[in-house]
Amino acid sequence: MPISEITEKLLAAKKDKGITFEELEKTIGRDETWIASVIYRQASADMDEATKLVTALGLPESTAEELTIPPLKGSLEPQIPTDPLIYRFYEIMQVYGMPIKAVVHEKFGDGIMSAIDFSVEVEKVPDPKGDRVQIIMCGKFLPYKKW
Amino acid sequence: MPISEITEKLLAAKKDKGITFEELEKTIGRDETWIASVIYRQASADMDEATKLVTALGLPESTAEELTIPPLKGSLEPQIPTDPLIYRFYEIMQVYGMPIKAVVHEKFGDGIMSAIDFSVEVEKVPDPKGDRVQIIMCGKFLPYKKW
Amino acid sequence: MPISEITEKLLAAKKDKGITFEELEKTIGRDETWIASVIYRQASADMDEATKLVTALGLPESTAEELTIPPLKGSLEPQIPTDPLIYRFYEIMQVYGMPIKAVVHEKFGDGIMSAIDFSVEVEKVPDPKGDRVQIIMCGKFLPYKKW
Amino acid sequence: MPISEITEKLLAAKKDKGITFEELEKTIGRDETWIASVIYRQASADMDEATKLVTALGLPESTAEELTIPPLKGSLEPQIPTDPLIYRFYEIMQVYGMPIKAVVHEKFGDGIMSAIDFSVEVEKVPDPKGDRVQIIMCGKFLPYKKW
Amino acid sequence: MPISEITEKLLAAKKDKGITFEELEKTIGRDETWIASVIYRQASADMDEATKLVTALGLPESTAEELTIPPLKGSLEPQIPTDPLIYRFYEIMQVYGMPIKAVVHEKFGDGIMSAIDFSVEVEKVPDPKGDRVQIIMCGKFLPYKKW
Amino acid sequence: MPISEITEKLLAAKKDKGITFEELEKTIGRDETWIASVIYRQASADMDEATKLVTALGLPESTAEELTIPPLKGSLEPQIPTDPLIYRFYEIMQVYGMPIKAVVHEKFGDGIMSAIDFSVEVEKVPDPKGDRVQIIMCGKFLPYKKW
Amino acid sequence: MPISEITEKLLAAKKDKGITFEELEKTIGRDETWIASVIYRQASADMDEATKLVTALGLPESTAEELTIPPLKGSLEPQIPTDPLIYRFYEIMQVYGMPIKAVVHEKFGDGIMSAIDFSVEVEKVPDPKGDRVQIIMCGKFLPYKKW
Amino acid sequence: MPISEITEKLLAAKKDKGITFEELEKTIGRDETWIASVIYRQASADMDEATKLVTALGLPESTAEELTIPPLKGSLEPQIPTDPLIYRFYEIMQVYGMPIKAVVHEKFGDGIMSAIDFSVEVEKVPDPKGDRVQIIMCGKFLPYKKW
Amino acid sequence: MPISEITEKLLAAKKDKGITFEELEKTIGRDETWIASVIYRQASADMDEATKLVTALGLPESTAEELTIPPLKGSLEPQIPTDPLIYRFYEIMQVYGMPIKAVVHEKFGDGIMSAIDFSVEVEKVPDPKGDRVQIIMCGKFLPYKKW
Amino acid sequence: MPISEITEKLLAAKKDKGITFEELEKTIGRDETWIASVIYRQASADMDEATKLVTALGLPESTAEELTIPPLKGSLEPQIPTDPLIYRFYEIMQVYGMPIKAVVHEKFGDGIMSAIDFSVEVEKVPDPKGDRVQIIMCGKFLPYKKW
Repeated sequence: MPISEITEKLLAAKKDKGITFEELEKTIGRDETWIASVIYRQASADMDEATKLVTALGLPESTAEELTIPPLKGSLEPQIPTDPLIYRFYEIMQVYGMPIKAVVHEKFGDGIMSAIDFSVEVEKVPDPKGDRVQIIMCGKFLPYKKW
Repeated sequence: MPISEITEKLLAAKKDKGITFEELEKTIGRDETWIASVIYRQASADMDEATKLVTALGLPESTAEELTIPPLKGSLEPQIPTDPLIYRFYEIMQVYGMPIKAVVHEKFGDGIMSAIDFSVEVEKVPDPKGDRVQIIMCGKFLPYKKW
Repeated sequence: MPISEITEKLLAAKKDKGITFEELEKTIGRDETWIASVIYRQASADMDEATKLVTALGLPESTAEELTIPPLKGSLEPQIPTDPLIYRFYEIMQVYGMPIKAVVHEKFGDGIMSAIDFSVEVEKVPDPKGDRVQIIMCGKFLPYKKW
Repeated sequence: MPISEITEKLLAAKKDKGITFEELEKTIGRDETWIASVIYRQASADMDEATKLVTALGLPESTAEELTIPPLKGSLEPQIPTDPLIYRFYEIMQVYGMPIKAVVHEKFGDGIMSAIDFSVEVEKVPDPKGDRVQIIMCGKFLPYKKW
Repeated sequence: MPISEITEKLLAAKKDKGITFEELEKTIGRDETWIASVIYRQASADMDEATKLVTALGLPESTAEELTIPPLKGSLEPQIPTDPLIYRFYEIMQVYGMPIKAVVHEKFGDGIMSAIDFSVEVEKVPDPKGDRVQIIMCGKFLPYKKW
Repeated sequence: MPISEITEKLLAAKKDKGITFEELEKTIGRDETWIASVIYRQASADMDEATKLVTALGLPESTAEELTIPPLKGSLEPQIPTDPLIYRFYEIMQVYGMPIKAVVHEKFGDGIMSAIDFSVEVEKVPDPKGDRVQIIMCGKFLPYKKW
Repeated sequence: MPISEITEKLLAAKKDKGITFEELEKTIGRDETWIASVIYRQASADMDEATKLVTALGLPESTAEELTIPPLKGSLEPQIPTDPLIYRFYEIMQVYGMPIKAVVHEKFGDGIMSAIDFSVEVEKVPDPKGDRVQIIMCGKFLPYKKW
Repeated sequence: MPISEITEKLLAAKKDKGITFEELEKTIGRDETWIASVIYRQASADMDEATKLVTALGLPESTAEELTIPPLKGSLEPQIPTDPLIYRFYEIMQVYGMPIKAVVHEKFGDGIMSAIDFSVEVEKVPDPKGDRVQIIMCGKFLPYKKW
Repeated sequence: MPISEITEKLLAAKKDKGITFEELEKTIGRDETWIASVIYRQASADMDEATKLVTALGLPESTAEELTIPPLKGSLEPQIPTDPLIYRFYEIMQVYGMPIKAVVHEKFGDGIMSAIDFSVEVEKVPDPKGDRVQIIMCGKFLPYKKW
Repeated sequence: MPISEITEKLLAAKKDKGITFEELEKTIGRDETWIASVIYRQASADMDEATKLVTALGLPESTAEELTIPPLKGSLEPQIPTDPLIYRFYEIMQVYGMPIKAVVHEKFGDGIMSAIDFSVEVEKVPDPKGDRVQIIMCGKFLPYKKW
């Protein structure tokens, strides 16, 4: 996956400063996964959020503007990703895609969960048998329009 | 997508009976999405669960056994699914895969969220601006073993 | 492309009756392209619309119910379609995708045109140098949510 | 997607000058989406249009000539694009391709909508429930020749 | 490649009757390659042509109508065809595509050769060193429209 | 498509000199499409032809030798090309491949049209309704050997 | 791989009769690999050869004609075959393709080894360390034509 | 196809020296195709062979060591190669793969021809009707082990 | 995945009889994974082994012969399998392929582990923290032949 | 396959020092295949292991930190690898994947062998008929969770 230059610069600064995503969440007032999305150029910030972010990372304010431009999103390579952590989401779609579709249609009718009016959060759920990763996705239900 | 015969039989019976996944959840004592996974032959039930399910759908008990065999899972066609509802999960992986990976590694170290010791629930979140679909995934964190 | 049985039945009835999509538009009170989408099982009708449609085609009312179930959408085969008429839409996306993206972002900011809260109409524009096909797509702009 | 050098130069100049596509439309006398297509090297301008464009962007006239050469068009990567805004056009083709084909054939007979003798415009339709993106495609109908 | 039922019926009748494409050309008054295209359901005939064709093949007139419906075209499988005769056209595109593009643009400017307002003929050119296959393609030049 | 350095150098020289392919045809005594193939490194010239070509373009004679080496041919990217002009040849193969195969086999028996002992010419056919592009392919018929 | 009906019939007859390819080679006077190619419908026989073949296998003469029709060749599935014996030929092309190309060009100039005016034989070479499979391919060198 | 640096250096030296593969065969005592495989980094030489090779090409002995390291083999791009000479081997596998498999199994039982304990030679067979390329592959038969 | 008829018959018989692979191992004197490979038609048995197998499963002896024919092997669909258990082997190859290659080459020189002169065993390793699956692959090292 | 810079640096140092993976195993107290995985950036070490490794290779301690960051794993190119040694693992999955699945499910029930809580070792098994490569994979069995 070709990581953009700005992403590399931000990640390097984050590492040098020793700041975590959780600390950035407090400074900027946005969820840490969303902030990570901005850093990976999958989401765009407004000028104020971008300035707070680059300042927190000790970078010049001029770095901020690039983070406000709508990026060309996606493009993991190869298309079925090989990284085991990311692949598991592909597997979940393959295995649970149809069951989820059935339940959503039963609860909401014909339509989809928006991936745009959408948020995703990652949380650590302590568990004596081994901690668990919890991913909460929440997207607006969009019913199909008729015309 | 080639839906297996048993799935078609179960879905037809469910429709004839007019039973919802939510009602099945109460009868069987398992989450509705998991039950949908059993019906779509993406998960295997034990004999007791399978019998409860086919009975609730008004099918003969002999139908139950097939639901206890570990299925060949996955295989949406085409591999990048075209159904808009299911595709959104692919899009989420493309857009938010790397940010999620970064946050998980920061919180847990090197490893993955299991898609096997894993559950997924679908909930309706009422919202005056339009109801929302909430998907909660919860999987055990598996750290990479060293040897 | 595997056309479903119900689609074949509806198309055959439409041909036998000699009814056009335009006439169906008048009978049902919905746009002809949307009606074609219902017939091809890419959109779902409500019970009333479905009944009007099958009645207009001279089919028994019992045929109507299947048209109300949310279908598994898409799945042209092969994924880059070979039919020249349909391929042109792929070509338009390849050639004009980036320019459209640039103009949309300039006009609206970061977000997308919904393909769900969306309509598409096909019109004939008479022209002495050769009639023209006009396709009007209209989808709600969905700005990316921040969280 | 590998953006050509000339495209990057033009976009940078456009941003520095703070000129919108809409303003370029007025200066050059061509639709803004077509101008964006020239900038992304998906369309070729004549010498006069190209000179007006580079001048408006404050670039030397010598930059103009490259914009008059027929470009190698298309080539989004990967072939099924991952950017959500662009992907929606792929989804529209998957979901509505067959219905559109049926309506076009009924209205015009066997043939296609040209993607060459073709224009595409992007408009903002204000709407209290959320503004809408309107895309108007208009291409000459080309009937299949017999010989 | 899945050949449609009607194609199989026509080819079988043609073989039983021992009629060549060349003889059909004389009977119907259309080029033999176009007639082969109708038989393979890649082109649509009008009612008169279709009737002449099925009559020449000794089939009932009722067979004619299906040949007048615009077909879903293309779809060789696999997408890069393995049949050596057909593959050579792929190879020609791979090897000579760019040179042809350069020559066409120099002669005509930016645009394409239409594959719709288009004919293709196959001829045998006797040659003492081995007969040659001549393929003559002729399509209208379509210049890109500006708007 | 990655164009080789030598191709870029030759095309730049051709443009600076303002020479057309047609003029090169006269100077070198070979068809212009073949010359374009040499320039795009899809065909190899002999030393004499190569020297004439580079001299005509005002390049040093030392440039000639590279054009005599058998090149690695083909490799449009992506494999199903997105450039509309080149794609049309793919479409022609998809739509007319089977009909052409049928006619060739009827005229010649089992075998293929060679793409090696082969020529292709591009001609402009003036037409009041719009000029036409004529492509004449001529390849030796190669019957399958038996052994 | 979808094996055609005629192939299955011939293979079944061959097995019932207990005849080897080598014995067929003697009866028909053609190499056993070529005969296997006819049986798999990758090569076409003339009427005489076909009759000898079906007679040797104890099938009615009427079976012979189908073997004289030029078949649609190739189409192993998937395109990179998974059968280990057949895959090795893919591997050989991957590993030794470029070296073979270099040696052929040095010996013959620019051109190819024909796969049409071509034979392939399979022989057993006894060897105390383990018998060896010898495959001898022999194809006419076809130099690129200039025009 | 990305040719490694060392390959380019060796090919350039070979061309400057004007040495053929055949002459290298005599100097090194290995078949010319194998030597070409070493040069293209598809095979690894021992130190003695590598030194002889680089010396014969007039390169410093220090160049030799790299040729002794087991290379990452294969990787023609695209996976179904477009170069006509190399593609023919793919075509041969597609067309004759199943017949060869049938003959090998009949002669040897279940197993494969090794592509590792394997040699391939390229020879020129003079023929008045046009010289022929002969490729002789010889690999150990490996029967499937049972356990 | 298209499972052959004979496989389905054998699996059904095995289930009816309630015999495990482990019991078949004892009856037939071959490893249970190899026996499973015969049942799935990925390996071929000799007549004696096949007869023992079908007899143990209570099937007629005539069923045995088919198991002695070298099968067309492989062909999971899709090519990158979606079943989570099988996919893990793909993931292991992706993640550990290069490291294993490095270690094998260091220990053995240039060559491969045979997948033909090869065995694979599956064992259960009890572990208080959760039982483990042990897969032992053992294949002959095949050094590259030089010639 | 794009090998990362740090991998190249480590491999070069290892070669200069003439250290084997086996010696690194003794120095670091981890299995050699795991160490190779760290060097290829497919596994992450802790600071102590990383420091031992770079010191053993004679590199500055500052090189160690990069080896502790969770890498983006996998991504052999092309996705079905062409290197014969690595491909054999793909072939094993294709041929033995289903049989292994059947045996694992019989021994353990529905679930998978973890590729994360997992180890893989490579051993040389001396054998007079040719040494053998033994690969021992051992992963925790993960039963599917129900919820």
